[in-house]
Amino acid sequence: MTAEIICVGTELLLGDILNDNARYLARELAALGIPHYYQTVVGDNRDRLKHVLDIATRRSQLLIFTGGLGPTPDDLTTETLADFFGVPLIERPEILADIAEKFARRGRQMSPSNRKQALLPQGAEILTNPIGSAPGIIWQPRPSLTLLTFPGVPSEMHRMWQEIAIPYLKTQGWGRNILVSRTLKFWGIGESVLAEKAGSLLDSTNPTVAPYANLGEVKLRVCARAASAEEAEALIAPVEQQLQEMSGHYCFGRDEDTLATAVGRLLLETGETVGVAESCTGGGLGRMLTEVPGSSHYFWGGVIAYDNRVKIGLLDVSPEDLETHGAVSHEVARQMAAGVRHRLGTSWGLSITGIAGPDGGTDAKPVGLVYIGLASPDGSVTSAEYRFGETRSRDWIRHVSACSALDLLRNALLR
Amino acid sequence: MTAEIICVGTELLLGDILNDNARYLARELAALGIPHYYQTVVGDNRDRLKHVLDIATRRSQLLIFTGGLGPTPDDLTTETLADFFGVPLIERPEILADIAEKFARRGRQMSPSNRKQALLPQGAEILTNPIGSAPGIIWQPRPSLTLLTFPGVPSEMHRMWQEIAIPYLKTQGWGRNILVSRTLKFWGIGESVLAEKAGSLLDSTNPTVAPYANLGEVKLRVCARAASAEEAEALIAPVEQQLQEMSGHYCFGRDEDTLATAVGRLLLETGETVGVAESCTGGGLGRMLTEVPGSSHYFWGGVIAYDNRVKIGLLDVSPEDLETHGAVSHEVARQMAAGVRHRLGTSWGLSITGIAGPDGGTDAKPVGLVYIGLASPDGSVTSAEYRFGETRSRDWIRHVSACSALDLLRNALLR
Repeated sequence: MTAEIICVGTELLLGDILNDNARYLARELAALGIPHYYQTVVGDNRDRLKHVLDIATRRSQLLIFTGGLGPTPDDLTTETLADFFGVPLIERPEILADIAEKFARRGRQMSPSNRKQALLPQGAEILTNPIGSAPGIIWQPRPSLTLLTFPGVPSEMHRMWQEIAIPYLKTQGWGRNILVSRTLKFWGIGESVLAEKAGSLLDSTNPTVAPYANLGEVKLRVCARAASAEEAEALIAPVEQQLQEMSGHYCFGRDEDTLATAVGRLLLETGETVGVAESCTGGGLGRMLTEVPGSSHYFWGGVIAYDNRVKIGLLDVSPEDLETHGAVSHEVARQMAAGVRHRLGTSWGLSITGIAGPDGGTDAKPVGLVYIGLASPDGSVTSAEYRFGETRSRDWIRHVSACSALDLLRNALLR
Repeated sequence: MTAEIICVGTELLLGDILNDNARYLARELAALGIPHYYQTVVGDNRDRLKHVLDIATRRSQLLIFTGGLGPTPDDLTTETLADFFGVPLIERPEILADIAEKFARRGRQMSPSNRKQALLPQGAEILTNPIGSAPGIIWQPRPSLTLLTFPGVPSEMHRMWQEIAIPYLKTQGWGRNILVSRTLKFWGIGESVLAEKAGSLLDSTNPTVAPYANLGEVKLRVCARAASAEEAEALIAPVEQQLQEMSGHYCFGRDEDTLATAVGRLLLETGETVGVAESCTGGGLGRMLTEVPGSSHYFWGGVIAYDNRVKIGLLDVSPEDLETHGAVSHEVARQMAAGVRHRLGTSWGLSITGIAGPDGGTDAKPVGLVYIGLASPDGSVTSAEYRFGETRSRDWIRHVSACSALDLLRNALLR
């Protein structure tokens, strides 16, 4: 009993978008212990999709489709499936009503082309889409063959997979051998140094331990396979503990944790609050902090001081120091942090000033030079210098600067 | 004459990595005007790779493989190809020498397993790897069938593709027809409405016109195929103009344009400046504006007023109005916009206040309710209400709110 992933969309053949849906589904199938041996990408083309169906239905028992469920004429997954199995399309009034209601709620008119999305093959069940207008199907067009279709929009596909497809597949006997994974997350330590610390643990087979690194963040993924989630957890627990002890304060969380949730948890514990003052990140640090639901309990806000006039006017940075040391300096970072803490009345003030590039760098102050300031509840103010290197992109420097600021606050809160 | 991409690697089936190689090659093939209709992912497995070969060799004349060229036992692309076509593997002394030299240069010993990488099918040419140890092959195992193999490491694959594969393909008559594409970008109009407006243009064949939608943004991609870039541009130009006229102000740009670059261009033209006041987006609007290098010419900064105390203290929002109308209201949005314009001294003030969820919604003010305020250079202040719907994620609502704010300013600048 094997599954197979089929992604439909000419935009994938043109290289316009990365096939993140295939990766998502591959990971999910692995987690459920459902084997899958092939992934196929095919364009919005009836004949070629039929050709792919002909091949896939001969070798797999569960076919998972993404894409081609939209309202436009080039969205033809559903009708091609019906045609392939020689089954008529039937209009489902409940889908039509659902689409109309979703449009009405946003104060918009349903367009006639959306009507097409209510046409499903006779005998197929509706795979409800809780967000968008395109529902999928769960269909067994013949014994021992199950088809699931999802829209190509990742957020819609993910919810439909989690809320409907997984429970359905479990009732059908798929996914009996379970894979449980735990991801430990680290900041401030390199992948190779962490891998050396982990040593022989990287060679273990159940659970496996594998390092990943992206945008300054390093992860260790611990995966265990067992007959039940409990047994898998029991295999993971001692390894996880060993890795955490070995890495100390570098480990800021696991799985869905981010630096922002880690900081938020610590601030909730102490009952303290934070405000931010941002120059080169332009709001990215505030955005990161407020990605966390409930962050209003400890994050009050801040000042985006992109222009020096705002640093002076709203953060009380000294015009003389701006002149003498420049906007990208320890002095200005500290005054920004102290200024936002004072103006907002928060426990902590956290600031960022730097050169994100691609222009604006000099020999003395190259692109990638960033200062982060931290004003503490006791009134003391510190700052740290970072040199991220001139080869990094503007996006990278801005992202890693915001993360570094959060990590600086996190370490201060841990002390 | 069509090409096909075959990516070999169990890590792709486990979802450990994104298939960026397929996207890279897809884009390259599109740019060369070489049609390709299928992409396949298969694991490190001899029998299944042969099965994929059996299918691909029947339908395509150029097969491009990535992955499975390394020294370990699970790297079996080369030997499986030789086996499939019934051709022996021959050790190539020049490859062996090259690998040994690369190891020596890094002060390392070549391991015995690297010897395997010098074994290529009889009759295959070497596709030299200028960086790593794994060479690929260029092979015509039978008339009208060309195979290219590349290592899975993106940096190696890219250089081998650019430096060797492209020139080779051109000598073989591939890529004589060029594909040029233009993407028009829209905000404030639905995909289905835009598709209906485009009407019969969606059925044209050269150039083709196809709609895409993601995160509130809608795109129309115009693709022309011709013998030269100039001819392709000439095919695109009238269609592009027609689409732009038909869609009016909904079209904010093309190709690499974003709403932030569109707003920036208009502000540079008028010599005006903007400041932002953000509640639910927490800095996301400022971050979006400052993604554009050089945005300091028109973006001065702003206030992240997540907590009402910051709305009152730094934006002069009236405590009474906050009490009477609530923070998420036309009144507060307008006062935030006027407040930031006044405090910063910018030409424009742009504000966002809303309920991003998942909690905090009520019947009267559900999740997804957002107000955007705009204070203009003439002192007038307007606001707009958006209802994005309660089913949208926090991330979606925050992202689309920031885009909607930029679009409101863009439309005001156009008037």
